[in-house]
Parts: sequence; structure tokens; C-alpha cells
Amino acid sequence: MTDKENLTLDPSNWEEMRKLGHRMVDDLIDYWATIREEKIWKPIPAEVKAFLDQPIPEKGQSPEDIYEEFRQYIFPYNKGNVHPRFFAWIQGTGTPLGTFADLLASGMNPNTTIGEHSAMYVDRQVVNWCKQLMNFPSEASGILVSGGSMANITALTVARNSFGEEKIRQRGLKAASAQLVLYCSVETHSCIQKAAEIIGLGTAAVRKIGVNDRFEMKIEELETQIQADLSQGLLPFCIVGTSGTVNTGAIDPMDDLLSISKKYGLWFHVDGAYGALAKLDPKYAGRLKAIEEADSLAFDLHKWLYVPYEVGCTLIRDANKHREAFAITPNYLLQESRGLSGGLDSINNYGFELSRGFKALKIWMSLKEHGREKYAQMIAQNNRQAEYLAELVNQHPDLELMAPVSMSITCFRMKRKGWDEDQLRRFNREILLRLQEEGIASPSSTILHGKYTLRVANVNQRTRMEDLDLLVKEVLRIGGEIETI
Amino acid sequence: MTDKENLTLDPSNWEEMRKLGHRMVDDLIDYWATIREEKIWKPIPAEVKAFLDQPIPEKGQSPEDIYEEFRQYIFPYNKGNVHPRFFAWIQGTGTPLGTFADLLASGMNPNTTIGEHSAMYVDRQVVNWCKQLMNFPSEASGILVSGGSMANITALTVARNSFGEEKIRQRGLKAASAQLVLYCSVETHSCIQKAAEIIGLGTAAVRKIGVNDRFEMKIEELETQIQADLSQGLLPFCIVGTSGTVNTGAIDPMDDLLSISKKYGLWFHVDGAYGALAKLDPKYAGRLKAIEEADSLAFDLHKWLYVPYEVGCTLIRDANKHREAFAITPNYLLQESRGLSGGLDSINNYGFELSRGFKALKIWMSLKEHGREKYAQMIAQNNRQAEYLAELVNQHPDLELMAPVSMSITCFRMKRKGWDEDQLRRFNREILLRLQEEGIASPSSTILHGKYTLRVANVNQRTRMEDLDLLVKEVLRIGGEIETI
Repeated sequence: MTDKENLTLDPSNWEEMRKLGHRMVDDLIDYWATIREEKIWKPIPAEVKAFLDQPIPEKGQSPEDIYEEFRQYIFPYNKGNVHPRFFAWIQGTGTPLGTFADLLASGMNPNTTIGEHSAMYVDRQVVNWCKQLMNFPSEASGILVSGGSMANITALTVARNSFGEEKIRQRGLKAASAQLVLYCSVETHSCIQKAAEIIGLGTAAVRKIGVNDRFEMKIEELETQIQADLSQGLLPFCIVGTSGTVNTGAIDPMDDLLSISKKYGLWFHVDGAYGALAKLDPKYAGRLKAIEEADSLAFDLHKWLYVPYEVGCTLIRDANKHREAFAITPNYLLQESRGLSGGLDSINNYGFELSRGFKALKIWMSLKEHGREKYAQMIAQNNRQAEYLAELVNQHPDLELMAPVSMSITCFRMKRKGWDEDQLRRFNREILLRLQEEGIASPSSTILHGKYTLRVANVNQRTRMEDLDLLVKEVLRIGGEIETI
Repeated sequence: MTDKENLTLDPSNWEEMRKLGHRMVDDLIDYWATIREEKIWKPIPAEVKAFLDQPIPEKGQSPEDIYEEFRQYIFPYNKGNVHPRFFAWIQGTGTPLGTFADLLASGMNPNTTIGEHSAMYVDRQVVNWCKQLMNFPSEASGILVSGGSMANITALTVARNSFGEEKIRQRGLKAASAQLVLYCSVETHSCIQKAAEIIGLGTAAVRKIGVNDRFEMKIEELETQIQADLSQGLLPFCIVGTSGTVNTGAIDPMDDLLSISKKYGLWFHVDGAYGALAKLDPKYAGRLKAIEEADSLAFDLHKWLYVPYEVGCTLIRDANKHREAFAITPNYLLQESRGLSGGLDSINNYGFELSRGFKALKIWMSLKEHGREKYAQMIAQNNRQAEYLAELVNQHPDLELMAPVSMSITCFRMKRKGWDEDQLRRFNREILLRLQEEGIASPSSTILHGKYTLRVANVNQRTRMEDLDLLVKEVLRIGGEIETI
């Protein structure tokens, strides 16, 4: 065999690849530094959609050429959650150093579940930092996952497998003595129902408890339902409390949920995907204190820690139950006392995945860049911004607050005398679409008590108070331009 | 409110951040370009482990300072799967452009499940390209996930929910008329058992069928087991065929599995995490033809498409069944005909996650850079390299092949006259550890028919034939230095 016969995917010219990397860095820096002046969103032209709908390439083309296509067809039509006026879904902005951490992580390219290498220690340290952020005990366990959905389903799998003497992991749910049941509110994120369906409990397992006028779970209704299920021979096993609903940022009554879960011997899981980190804002610290006592907690780092996509975290109070839910060691993964197969316990023993990237690095670099104190200030700033927006709404006779402000979400709409609910829905929907289409700002919408509302959800490290002034001004301007609907 | 009160996580000096980005690109280019000359792996010193075991930072430090710490404590102790002599677990090398694509994806930072933005169209195009790579029908559906484990569990969830009239998604497994059962071989990847446990079937659902001397599932034993389960009133629902076992690269008899699944009305799932892409090598195309008829297929792009971590793919023949297993649309995700909430069907309707990064971009750029033909050549090259290594083993009287070579895996060991199995295990284990500790090469080990073996698994775009010559030479050198064990 001669050298000539060895093919590779590495570039034939490293210096050209280096230059291309520099250009990409330059373009990203320019993009971030000037994004405040740019439109938040642009409709995608038909020719762009057509370009992104062609068959697989048979032959290669140059990296420079591909990058030009990226600049022309992909980069300009970005979602916008990097922009200071993105308020739609609860999606963070990311940071420049967080992105550069992703560059380094991808360049090192370790599969970070097994083996003795530095990424495993960074991952462990970051999980420990997550426990410290949440004031979870140091002997708790945790795992980094793609985000809230995976964090919740991971926790609920542990909760299900830890239930009683049913041995569900081994025997399956068919052999359980009755249907397992979990409790959440009607405002709980849809991923909880999805998780129950995926792990085999079915929609049948999910009891959606009503909420009060602040959209928080009604405790009496919860207890009544648990007793009803018990008296029917069903098996209540878990209460899910939400720390920050996606609709309004409502916080379920954590102290009460903790008490009830203890009273009935149920697993207490907190979905804090969006709002567990509000704990760092003194205004919310008291109401969220009880999540430190939860059996499990799910929260996202790409939301309110402003880390680039994707990364969430599951914490489990009882590390043994966590490991017992997932650990498997096949022959090809035997651990050694030395060499590449030495080191820490496989992360595969704590979750679904044996393949995962080095997502810990961006959290590691971000927490070192800013420190816990700065994050606490940023989170508090988003909360104050939501309150400021509510003040602006309350001050204007044509605007109406649609829910109490909780955390960093403000729901409001524009009023018009004599219009019915359906007209108001179409009116505010049109305002929303024009805000987006004109590239001004991206709130989203939802339905509260049957009423359509604009929804401003903010986990944005780039938002300034002036952005909220502008938002209100533009809502009023667009609303004023709409005469009939 | 004044401007001064607006905090941000953006850098105060963009030009310094730009310079730092350039340095990172430079260091990665130098790393990749010279990696052949470097040690593949280094033991992690105690002071590095101590540095990576400190509490969460309260205050921030400069990005430059953090990067220096990265260079000192993290970068040098990388796993090594970027190196030309990484042959341990089936983990790809990545490519420079693939890594730069991750930089761009992280910098754009879209959550790629919902909304009208370019990443959604890139994702759809890449899923279509995946179908084309696998010769799946264009009306099939698919989803990009973190890797093989998630790809398999996603497919098995669809298989479970699609079974008969049981309405498992709604009613749960407790209400099923009997225990569901799936079939795989004893050589199947552990993630299949884990998937069965997670989705509530339990270990009880998994029938591990025996294998022949080429480690391929025994068809007669499979059919006997199905009939036995049926006669006991159990509910067979799925056969899992493996296209490339992790131990030896063995391929289950796909034509037979397809026939049997049709005969008994079972879902036919193929775990091709490692080896579905061997289809592109003419030597394997015929034996893998039947996977085009599978109900579902899981395969990884960060393995044999050499894309950086993390990305795998699930394809489902019946797109309706796929969507019916996962679709949920809450109020806060209502789709619009215009604006940011317009566009394609939410990817959340096809899988577990509502949070996910823009992992499609690295596949998009990689397939455009090299084209399908080059990948076919690269995959064939890895297969020929495994065969070449087997030749070297067969030519040497002190070496012994431990399994037939299939795809790109070669299992062998060094012999020593008069030593029993336990001595040979310790002898070859010591050879393996020294190979790693001296930084020469990283094979791994496994147990085949009770015998310890070195295992060379190669999905490496940087490996040359000369690396295999060196590996054999060094195994013999190290083995020769070990006199007693």
C-alpha cells in the first residue's frame, strides 16, 4: 500500500481552512456586535426555500463556496433569539464566549459519556456547580441533557422506577399492581404529558389539576384527586410542580406540594426548565426555597443561564435511585483501573444516551466568565424588565394586562371599544404578525382563560428597558393603523 | 431608567473577543494538522483533576484567562478519537469544516424545533438526504437526535405505540392485553435493552436470541421463540436487527428478519447506529439491501459520516405512525400562517425534544463538502483497512484472529505458548493498557465466547494503512517485553 491510496476528509490546504475559520469568527463577531440595529426576523423568500430543497450532493464543492451559500441562504434568515427584542418562546440568547466554547468542544470532539479524559471531569464539575446553583446536597446526582423535555423525562423515569416494590425496570408496567398516576396542573408544560406517554404510563396516568387566578395549582383539588385515585386502587407516585409555567411564569405552591408529597409518600419532581434559576433573584428565593427539598429537579441552562443551545440538567436527590434506573455495563464497556477505560463512572449509567457531545464546556466557560453573582443580577434584571413592561401596560388606557406578572413573563393585549373576543383575537394577532414581519420585535401569543393574548417572555441578556418602551410604542402604532378586522 | 442600568453578558470589548476567537481557530487548526505526530492519549495528572474539582465561581474572570486554563488543563487530556490511531469505541474523528459548522450553529443559536427560520429548512433537507443515503422512500419521516441510543429509543417508542389496537400512548402499558415482547440477539447493543426498560416494557420484554459463530442472530431460534411467546399469550411486536454489532461488526441476516417480521406481522427495526452506512460499500450493499424495507432505522452521523459529536438519525417508514406517537400542540405553540410561528411542522411532533440545537448544519456542510461518492470511498477504505489488519494478524504466528472480520472491526490477540485463558487475558490487557499509556494507539477490548480480545474498531477518516502496520509492530514489541503475567 502506498500513501497515495490513503484517502482523508482533512483539507488539502490547512491555511485556507484557517482563513475560513477566521472569516467565520469575524462574521459572527460583527453579527453579534451590530444585532441591535438589525431586523429581528425576515420572511424567507421562495428561492431560499427552493435552494434548501434539493437532493443529496453526489460530488463535493469547496468549503469557501459552501460558506458563501451559508451566508446567502441560511445566516440572514435566523430565528432571532440572539436579538435584544426576542420575547417569543423561552429561548436564551447565548453569549460569544459560550459559542466559542462550542467551537472548542466540537474541535476536541470527545464522546462525553465514557473513558478517562478531561471532558469527563469538566462534566462532573459542571454538574456539581448545577447542584450548588440550586442548593442541592453534594451527594445528589445529576446529568446534562439536551434541554427541559429530556431533563423531565429522565427524572420521571427515575421516579417511576423507584416506585414501591414494583420492579418496573425489570418487569415492566404491565406487571405493576395497578395504573400509576402523576399529578401536575393544567398549566404544566406539555413535555410532562409527553414524558408520561413515552415511559409507558400513557395519557391515562396524568391528572391535570386546576389552577387559581394566578395560574398556580390548586392544592385542595390536588389532595382530593389523590384521595379519589387511592380509593379507586390506583397508584399515585409523583407530583410535578412547575417553577415558572411557560404561559405566565406562574409558580406552583412549592411548600404545599412538598408537604403533600411527603404526606402521601409521593415523588416530588420540579419542572424548573424555565424558572428554577429565578431562585437567584431575592424576590423569588423564598417561594422557590422548597425546590431544594425536591426528589428531582429539571432546569435549562440555555434558557436563563443564557448558554447557547443545547443544554439542560436533571438533578436527582438520591444518586443510588438515579443509577439504578439506568446502569448497564456490557462487555465492550468494561471499566479498567488504568488507561483510556479508567476514570469516572460512565455517564450512560445516569441517563438515556451513550452518545453525547462535550456540552459541559460552554457552561464551564460561562460560569467562569461571569460568576454566580452576575447571573443573579441578570436574572433579576429580566424580572424587573417584565414588571416595567407591566407598568407601561397599566399606564396606557388602550392596553390591558392579561395575567399577573410572575418572573419574566408579561401577558397583555390591546383593547378596542365595542369589539368582541374574536375581534380582539384577530386584532392582537395581526399586531403580533406585523411586529414580527416588520422585524421590530418577536413576542409570541397564547390563550389565557379562553382569551388571546400577546406574551412577552424574556430570558434575554441583550434586552434593555428601552426595548420595552419601543415594543409598547410599536404595538400602539400598529394597533392604531388597523381600523377594521 | 438609564442606559447604565442595563447589564449584559456581551463583551465590553468586541475586538478582544474577536482576537480570542482567532486564537482558538488557530490552535484547533494546528492541533488537527499535527495530530498524527502527537500522542493519542495521556494520563491526567492529579493536579489537573484537582483543578477540575473546585466549587462554583462567585466572581468572573477574563475570557483570555479562562482560555489559558482550557489550554493547560483540558485541551491536552482529550479523549483521542480525533487521532488517526483511535480504534477503541466506535467514535468518529470529526472534520475541520464540521467543527466550523458547529461554531456557526452555536453562534446563530436557534432552537431548531419550531418556528419559521432557515435552520428548520436545513434540518428538513438533511433528513431528506439521510433518507436518500439509506434509500428510504421520500414519504418516510425522520428526525435528527443525539445519537444511536436516542435514535433507537425513538424508533421503539413508535413501534410500541403502533402495535395493534392497544392505544398504548393513551391508555399506557398497564392496560395492554398482555406483555409486549421484542426480539434481538445476544450481541445487540445494550441501548436496546435500556430502551425497552425506559419505555416501560421492562427487561422482561427483551428476548435475546443466540448467535452463530459469525455472531449473527440465529433465525431458527428466533422463530421458535416467537412461537413460544405466542403460545403463552404474550404479544410479540418487534424484531430488532443489528447492522454492525459493536463487538465484531456482525450483520444479522436482514432478509430473513424481514421475512419473519412480515410473516408474524411484527415491526422490523434496524439498529444501524454503527454500520448502516456500510451500505455505501459495494461489498456490503447486497447484505444490507433489506434495511431499505425496515419499518424503522437508527444510524449515527458522528460515527461513519465522520461528523463531530453529536448527531444520529431515526427514519420511520410510516410518517403518520411517527407523528401519532409524539404530536402535541399546546396553546403556546399554536401554528400561524404567517410570521415567526409559520412554516414547517414542529420537529417536536416527531420526537422527545422541544429543545434542540442546530445540529443539522454540520451534516449539511459536510455532505456538500465531500458528496456522497467520497463518503462511500472513505467507508470502503475503513473496511479494507480492517481486512488488511486481519491479514497482518494471520501472517504472524504470535497473533490470533478472534472473530471473522465484518465491516471495519478486527478482533485479535497475542498468543503465548502454554498460557491459559486467564493469563492470556491479563497479557493482552497489559498490552492494551501500555499501548494507550505510551500514547501509541487506542484499541479497546471485549469478551468473545468467553475469551478476552483486543478490538480494533475503525470509523476514522485519518487512519492510514501504515497506522495498522505500526499497531501490529507495537503490539508485538510490547508483548515481547512482558515475560510473566
